[in-house]
Parts: sequence; C-alpha cells; structure tokens
Amino acid sequence: MSWIDIPDGSPFGPENLPLGVFRHGDEEPRVGAAIGDQVIDLAPVASAQMLDGAQLFAQPSLNAFLALGRPAWRATRNWLLDLVSNSAERDTVEPHLIPQSAVGMQLPVEVADYVDFYASEQHATNLGRLFRPDSEPLLPNWKHLPVGYHGRAGTIVASGTDIVRPSGQRKASDATVPTYGRSQRLDIEVELGYVVGTPSTLGKPVSVEDFEEHVYGVVLVNDWSARDLQAWEYVPLGPFLGKSFATSISPWVVSLDALAASAVPLPAQDPPVLPYLAGKNLVNYDITFEVYLNGHLVSSPPYRDLYWSPAQMLAHLTANGASVRTGDLYASGTVSGPEKNQRGSFIELTWGGREPLLVNGKHHTFLEDGDELTISAWARGSDGSRLGLGLGEVTGRITPGSRDK
Amino acid sequence: MSWIDIPDGSPFGPENLPLGVFRHGDEEPRVGAAIGDQVIDLAPVASAQMLDGAQLFAQPSLNAFLALGRPAWRATRNWLLDLVSNSAERDTVEPHLIPQSAVGMQLPVEVADYVDFYASEQHATNLGRLFRPDSEPLLPNWKHLPVGYHGRAGTIVASGTDIVRPSGQRKASDATVPTYGRSQRLDIEVELGYVVGTPSTLGKPVSVEDFEEHVYGVVLVNDWSARDLQAWEYVPLGPFLGKSFATSISPWVVSLDALAASAVPLPAQDPPVLPYLAGKNLVNYDITFEVYLNGHLVSSPPYRDLYWSPAQMLAHLTANGASVRTGDLYASGTVSGPEKNQRGSFIELTWGGREPLLVNGKHHTFLEDGDELTISAWARGSDGSRLGLGLGEVTGRITPGSRDK
Repeated sequence: MSWIDIPDGSPFGPENLPLGVFRHGDEEPRVGAAIGDQVIDLAPVASAQMLDGAQLFAQPSLNAFLALGRPAWRATRNWLLDLVSNSAERDTVEPHLIPQSAVGMQLPVEVADYVDFYASEQHATNLGRLFRPDSEPLLPNWKHLPVGYHGRAGTIVASGTDIVRPSGQRKASDATVPTYGRSQRLDIEVELGYVVGTPSTLGKPVSVEDFEEHVYGVVLVNDWSARDLQAWEYVPLGPFLGKSFATSISPWVVSLDALAASAVPLPAQDPPVLPYLAGKNLVNYDITFEVYLNGHLVSSPPYRDLYWSPAQMLAHLTANGASVRTGDLYASGTVSGPEKNQRGSFIELTWGGREPLLVNGKHHTFLEDGDELTISAWARGSDGSRLGLGLGEVTGRITPGSRDK
Repeated sequence: MSWIDIPDGSPFGPENLPLGVFRHGDEEPRVGAAIGDQVIDLAPVASAQMLDGAQLFAQPSLNAFLALGRPAWRATRNWLLDLVSNSAERDTVEPHLIPQSAVGMQLPVEVADYVDFYASEQHATNLGRLFRPDSEPLLPNWKHLPVGYHGRAGTIVASGTDIVRPSGQRKASDATVPTYGRSQRLDIEVELGYVVGTPSTLGKPVSVEDFEEHVYGVVLVNDWSARDLQAWEYVPLGPFLGKSFATSISPWVVSLDALAASAVPLPAQDPPVLPYLAGKNLVNYDITFEVYLNGHLVSSPPYRDLYWSPAQMLAHLTANGASVRTGDLYASGTVSGPEKNQRGSFIELTWGGREPLLVNGKHHTFLEDGDELTISAWARGSDGSRLGLGLGEVTGRITPGSRDK
C-alpha cells in the first residue's frame, strides 16, 4: 500500500522500488527509485531528511551506493518502503516525484568486469545441436561447472541505444575462404544479469552462502549476438566479436530483497556437484521473460528452472581466487525453456534460420535493419501473482552498419 | 646524451623515458618517468614550469594523461627529452629525481577491458599439439584472423604482487569425474601488452592505419595460467578460471614513439588477409624477452616474428564496431619462437610436463610454491644494439593457496 497512485499492472509496485540513474532536462544525472509511473528523486529527499550519504544519490551511477554493502542496502530499502507507505512522508517526497515519461534513463552501473554464463540446459543443448551437429550436444564439463566466459564491459549500453549491425568475418560451410561483411545472422540472447556491490579479496573464493553479501540485484540483459561471426571465430578461445559489439541492459536494478518473494528452490542437480558448488538453500527466481519483436510477443522464456543458481555462478567465478569488484555484472546466459515458444534466441526459435517465425503476417529468421526488440520480465510471488514485481524492459533497434568491404 | 648519470646497461636510457605510477613514502601515488636508476617526479617539475595539465601527473594512474591523445603524447615526449638532455633544465629537474630503489611501483593504468590474443604461430601450433593431439594443430580460422578473447581486467596486478596458487576443477584424462583442488599445472605466458589511450566510437571500426592514434605504448604481461583448470573448462566458450586468477604487468609503459627505433616489417602473411586487416606499413617490434625462474634464465622468446601485428589486432578487435576505451589493454598472447629455448610457457618448455627442465641442478616442470618468475625484455634499434631501450621487468612469486576441498 502506498499513498502514491500506482496504475494497475505497473511493474513497479510499492515493494519493488528498483534503483536507476535518470536524466531530467539539463540537470546532472542522478539516482532515482521507480514507483508506478514515477521516479523518486532520491538525493533531495535524502538531503531534506539530512541523511548520511545523501550525496551518493547525486552521482551518475549506482556504484558508490553499491559499494556500501548489504547493511546499507537493507537500511536504504527500509527507508524507501517507509517513504512510499507512510503518508506522513508525503509532504517531503511529493515535490520530488517526476513522471517517468519526463526523464531519460542511462546505464545504472559503471560496469567493471562482465561475465556471461551458459546456465540453461535447454539453451546449451539447443546450441550444441546447432553448432556441433555431429557430437553430443552437452559437453562433458557442462553439468559439473557453470560454464562461463568474459565479455566486453565497455560495450554494455543502456536500454534504448540503437544497435549498429556489426560487420566481421564469416565463412559459409561450403566456402573455402572467409569473407568480410555485415552480419546476416544477427540475434538476441535473453538473460538475467546479477550486479555485484560488495567487492571480494583477491585469492579468497566467495562461498555459495555469501551470495547475498556481494550481489545487490538484477537487470535484464540482451546479449546481442552475430551468429555467423561467432561460428567462424569461436574455436578454440570462445566467442569474441560475435558478442562484443553491444550488450543492452535494463535501466532499473531490482534488489535481491525485493526479489526474495519470488525465490524458488533450485531443481535437483544430477550428477551431484562438487562441495564448493553445493549449498543447502540454493535458489532461482520465478521470473518469466517476454520477448517482443516490433511489438509482437514471440517468446516467453522461464527463468525458474535454470540449471545453475546465481550463488553457484558467483562461487565458481571466484573459486580460483579471482576477486569481484563493485559494478561487476554476471549474466545467466540465454534462458530457454523446453517449449518452442520459450526459447531465448532467434537461432533457437527458428532452428538455425530454417524454420522462420510468422510475426504479424511476415516471416522472420534473424534480425533485420529497423527491427525493434524488447524484452520485459516479471517475477511471481509465492501466491503465483505478479505482485507489481516487474523488472521493466530492455529495448533496442537495429540500424544498418556503414561498412561492407 | 643526458646530464643525468645513467648506469651502463640500464634499460632506461635517455630516449626511452617510460611512464609509471610510483609511491614515495606516505605521499600520494603519482606519475613518474624512469631514467637510469631514477624516477623523475613529473608533477612538481611540470608545476614549476607552469605547464597546462601538470595536475594530470599528480594522479594515481596514467589514464587521464592517456586520454589526451597523440598530439599531447608527442608534446610530452619532446618535453621529457628536453628535460633530460638540456643541461639548462638541471636546476629545475634535479630536486625532483628520486632513486628507483626508494619508491614502490603500482599498476600504471586503471585497466578498462582486457583482451588477450593468440598471435604467435609457434605458440598456437604447440598448444594445438598439446591440447588436441588428434587434430591439425592450427585451426582453420587461425591465419585469417587474429584469434582473441576477453580476460578479467579486475585481476590484473602490479609486478611484484604475490600470486596465490589457484584452486579449481580439473579432470584427469583417465578419471570419470572431476575433482577440486590446488592447480598442479601452474604456468606462465610471456606476452607483450598494448595500452590504449584514445577511445574510439561505438559502431566505428578502427583501421590498421589508425593504430598509433589510439595506442600509447606497451607493457610486459605475464598471463598466469592453470593448465589443468583450463583443459577441463575451455570448451566451448574458451579459457575462464584457468586464467582469471591473476595477470601481472610491468610498471613502466614504454611509448610507441620510443619503440619506433625497433620497428620491423611484419613477415609476409599467407594466405593474404582480408582488406580490413591489410596495410602497407604493418610492423612488429624487435623485442626479445628473457624469462628467469628463481634467477636462472630459462627462455628467450623473440617478439619480432609474431604472425599478427598489433595494428591488425586493434583493427580486428573493433571490426564489428566494438569501441575501445582509455585504459584498454590488449596483449599478444604467448610469444614463442621456433627454438626450444624460445618458448614462452612451461607447458611448451617441458612439453606438457613430460620433459622437465634442469634449472640450477633441479628438475622443473610447472611452477612450485615459492618459485619466483621474472620476465624482462629489451628492444633493439636498427643497428642491432639495445640502445637503453628496455621494458623493465614483471615479476611474481607463487604462494600456496589456502583451500583444498
């Protein structure tokens, strides 16, 4: 319940309160919280209440706030819950409510390192079948460790940023030499991303139990992929230019505390995992994505059955002593469910381009210039309802590349 | 010629003038230039001369200076050359010379994204034979593009930082399941790293001709590698925990302008490369590394015959429109020459551990706890002499990990 008017069906109910960085006119970008269709401008509210650290909300990224750690995150959440639920706060807060339609959103986090996992069994199986049709689709290591790799942090872009179609090398299977040109198999990857707040120490692994001490919350991730570039380049050192041209993330970071209502037990893992990946209370989140191509729903991947939990991803990422920093982002990898309309990429939805999708009367395989792709997502509470716990959306439109030589 | 006394055999002659970040007592870390066995404390010298931008040298990384771009780099080099060669500058500079033995060096650059290439044909052939003994050692893409991947920027450490032996999953070839424990095949990779100063624009590739507009200079890189972790994890998405625990870089960044004396034409490439990788004046640098295990020389890899030039690496890295940022580091990959004593890793020097090296009367395969590994390097001028053009050194000692479960 809130004294703020929240439209029916809003993703940003009174217990969600995600944080982002907004621009309002010519003012400096700063931190806000979303509620309904408005933004709470947090710096002046915190200043009016003479809170310590009000300046952290006047910054153009969440990093300084994220570095404070979980006790401060909890205290901030409790403060926000009070601001929106306690009508005695109305006089203080109301002057600092801004319609979301009046602001622009930018990257919420200055991303340090970006790691992408490969944690959906259905997706890894589909890609194995498509990329290596003559072998077992899941490689021998897949159920023993969450496979992952480093992506390019410097090309993570805010939702709404146009995506320039990448060029690069690709080689047709019947060609003897590669050619260079605009990607003809431009794709999406629907993912959930975890934002690290509290850094860890070099040489000290983070245990699965310490996940919530380090991770603040989640964003939606669209890891744009050029499948033709990727297929030619990826052996033996993994994806590089097929992914590095752009990764879009959603503007609002939803906290683990808000998501707690949608936590579900991790499905059983067989074979059993090694002790450093084992835990008593491993969870996923009951989140469903919706993928829209030019406004038409084409897929609804479910997150809840992902094979690897985010706590296991973090434990694995640091098992060798690698440290994490404030602003690190690690993503789940493409989320695909068992049904055809639950696949999280077009290479899966169209089975390598061989089975076009009919969208609004037109056949689609990979992305064409001008296509607009939007991913939204909702978390469900324990009663099965959406409860105003949305993750918002991440969107981008394909523009033609300028170079074709 | 310099009025500063430079010891015979110093890597830091009067035309080298590399930049780094030093700590002196309790003072704030700041930028210095190396000459002989001394450091020029640049901020007070620049202030005394009332130079614009003197504050850039008072910062704890080179990033702000690097962002200025090539005209400023050239002007700064000319200023430094004058400071050390013109005896009229002696009264200004001498009070700000500090012995290198009195300072500590830290990371010179706040690293943005880190990319590691695989540009030595001899190394890629050796690793192919060792990791995939039943296939052709060079994969079909290798001579068409400089294969590369993203590494972990947050675990790049200063020379001298102890390296904690990583733990992780590995699976023996005759085992049915993996185990977790301390790496038993801890290795080095001897590389040259290129430091980006001038950023590029997202969506706009950087041509091979624009290499010197973006890259400021070079550092030595030791990309520590756990071969047992790497062998088990690396399919299909490439190396991850086998590399991400630590990468050491040398403290002094040698500028391309200083290195110009050692530029050599790139060897012919066959098959011919695609137009975006072709250029008229592609060069390598005539640099020779020296690898010391506990003070004993074990290898001398030559850089000059590397298959891919650094300008091609940058053009490829950005061919898909990916942008580079100030502070980006991209490394050559392990440098190995054709001779056994020119190999740049122990997995090559000992052929997978099967042919131990005899070092100071003891057999060595992979690194043991307490081992100290130092890489130094020298560039040669056109007359074949070293000309005081050294890159300094990068060093690290292995300490036992604390965890073995």
